[in-house]
This record gives sequence, C-alpha cells and structure tokens, in this order.
Amino acid sequence: MSPRQKTSSPIPSAGPAETVQVSPWGTPEQRERRRQIKREALVRAAARAFRDRGYHNTSLDDLAAALHITKPTIYGYIGSKQELLFECFRAGVGQIQSVFAEAEHIEGTGRERLLAAARGYAEAITSEFGWCMVRAEDQDLGPELSEKIKKLKSDIDQGLRRRIREGIADGSIRECDPKMTAFALAGALNWIAHWHRTNDALRPGEIAARLLDVFEFGLAP
Amino acid sequence: MSPRQKTSSPIPSAGPAETVQVSPWGTPEQRERRRQIKREALVRAAARAFRDRGYHNTSLDDLAAALHITKPTIYGYIGSKQELLFECFRAGVGQIQSVFAEAEHIEGTGRERLLAAARGYAEAITSEFGWCMVRAEDQDLGPELSEKIKKLKSDIDQGLRRRIREGIADGSIRECDPKMTAFALAGALNWIAHWHRTNDALRPGEIAARLLDVFEFGLAP
Repeated sequence: MSPRQKTSSPIPSAGPAETVQVSPWGTPEQRERRRQIKREALVRAAARAFRDRGYHNTSLDDLAAALHITKPTIYGYIGSKQELLFECFRAGVGQIQSVFAEAEHIEGTGRERLLAAARGYAEAITSEFGWCMVRAEDQDLGPELSEKIKKLKSDIDQGLRRRIREGIADGSIRECDPKMTAFALAGALNWIAHWHRTNDALRPGEIAARLLDVFEFGLAP
Repeated sequence: MSPRQKTSSPIPSAGPAETVQVSPWGTPEQRERRRQIKREALVRAAARAFRDRGYHNTSLDDLAAALHITKPTIYGYIGSKQELLFECFRAGVGQIQSVFAEAEHIEGTGRERLLAAARGYAEAITSEFGWCMVRAEDQDLGPELSEKIKKLKSDIDQGLRRRIREGIADGSIRECDPKMTAFALAGALNWIAHWHRTNDALRPGEIAARLLDVFEFGLAP
C-alpha cells in the first residue's frame, strides 16, 4: 500500500479474507526473526560471561539477571547451560568455517591460501567466542555435545593440514610435517584467547599480521 | 656394622646414650623424606585426574579412593583442592624454569638458546602437569593463588621475550615483534596439552623437534 492510498483511507476497514491484517505481534516471519535475534543475543551474552568469569562460575540466573529476563525465559531458547556453551562454541567455529571457505577460492599459492585462512582464524579468536572455542573443556559437555565439538575441531585441523599439503605440493611451502605444523599454527592462533584483552591497543588484523609473521617466513621454501 | 659383627652379637644391648637407636618410624630426616615422596605422589595423581576428568569433575574423595587413603589424609598434605591445583601448576612450571636456567648457560647464539629453552618447555608440557599448566582456569583458584600463577606465567613469557630480543641483538634472529613472537611460540608449545596423548607414538623430544621446525626457519635472519 503506497502512502497516497494510506492517506486517502485513514480508517482501516475490514478487508476481504485474503488481505493480511497488521498484527502487533507481527507476521510469523517477523516473529521468527525477532526470536533469532534474541537467541543470538543470549548466546553472545553467555560467551562474554563464560569468558569473564569461567563456565562453572556463571549460572543461568546470573545470565538472566544481566539480560533483565527470567531463567524460564532462557529455557525458551536453549535446553541447558551445556547446550549454551555448545552454541557459543559453534558460533565461533562458524566464523572460522566461513573464512576457510573464502580462502579456498583465493587465486594464488597454497601458502597464500593458508595464511589468508589463518588471518581470519586469528580474528575469530579475538571475538567474544574465542574463550569458549579454546578454553571451554570438553568434559563440561555431555558425551553427545562433546563428540560434536571434537568433530568440528577435527574439521578445522584437517582444513589446515590440507592447505599445508597443498602448499608443499605446489612448492610454496617448505617440506615439513603437515600435522605438527598445523598443530603449531593452531596453537599460536588459539593461544590468542589466553592473552587477548578486548581493550588491546592492536586491532585484530594487526595482531594476526604480527603473530603470523614467523609462520610466513618459517613456511617459505 | 658388618654381617660378621652382627652374627657375633645377635641380641641388641642397650648402647650408650649418644648411640642412635633404630626406630621403626625412622629418623626425622627419613620421615620428612617419606612425607615429601607421598606429597609428590598426591600432586602427580591429582594432575593426572584433573587432566583425565577435568578439575571440576574430580573430587578429593575420588582422589583419595584412587590412592587408597581417606580425605582427611589428603588434608594432612594439602589445604584444599584449589591448593592442589596450584601445586600441579607449580610442579610443571618448575620444570620449565629449570630448562630456562640451563639454556641461559648454553654457549651459542640467542636463537640457539631460545630453541633449547623451547625444546625443554615442549617436553614439560607433555608431562602429566601439562594440562594443569595450560588448561586449568585462573578463575578456579582464589585471588591469591591466581595472582601467584599470573606471576609465574608472566616470568616464563618475559623469559621467552628476553631470549628473542637477545637473538635480534646478536643477529641470530630476524627483526620481529618480540612480544607477538613469544606469544606465537608459547601458544604452539602450550597447545601440546590439548592434543598430546600419553600413548603418542612420537617421543617428547621428537614432538618438540617437529613442532619447532617452523620456528627454527621462521626466526632465522
């Protein structure tokens, strides 16, 4: 409906059955979107709380209070605290999966693709999800979620190894042990979650560049 | 006393006052030594239990049962579970401090001293104390022990940075950001605690060599 039409008919009349009425609850799509936004805010707030106080020292009551909601409201979005930790982990891994997928399409050498992926990885670890991705303990999740996390971690590890092997194959990476080199690189990147502070003077991109410098030279043939 | 003398006088006689009597409790020195051995065994068993099940999922009751003792016996050696975690951390850091001190006296370049220190560091992380050193959370300790751990960690970090700066000064290490390079190196080393299994086919020295390969080349001028 254009503004002109609206002006010409200020009082809504009962339309035919097929006309969508404006509801203060919004359309089902709008409601689903608002629900998603709230769920994401909950996961983000949990990630910050776990990072700042530790998983075991944060209760759902603390979290509910910080978001001005009740614990039952939280349970409307998530089944348990364990599941919330898992969602924090998954949100961070999702960022890394995205940069890995982008890096795959870069025209260049295997080493260039590896380093592009590593830069994006570093930036994901500086996000609020870094702590949960790196420092949360598998033992704190039940066997089922723990298995899922192991699978996600293994995929990232295999992604790094594949990039390294590609680089060795195209001559852009020196002969090395791909498994141990992937561990060294992942360790350097994951460790960011241990020392990085949100008020760090360096921006994530600059942190990534300085940290990866030794790998850039150390991988070169 | 020789066996011959013993045979000639099978029944012990009361000696003069200054003669030390053989007591089934041993001498104070022997008792103190036995106490130390038991305390070390307790700390080592705790380190393994925390690594295998997580700190929060291990109770002092579990630990007492595994050692065939009672919880009050544990309290004869250690004030609290937090203190036990701290002692596990300190035992591991002690190993790193030793190799750092040894590396300081190596005749050679700054890069050689740094890599020698890093090799010993890697081997310490493969020990049972690796998990506690790397994966235990500061938040799980009270403010006082947490401060002590921060100090110990900072000393190790500063030790690595010093070695890197020395190497840059003597021309054996390429110009780089000593802080970020120390973080990259510590991350690669600490990460061993996340992937290393006690049944790993590679021995600790071999793990260290393959992992540090990229740094050996990446630090060279």
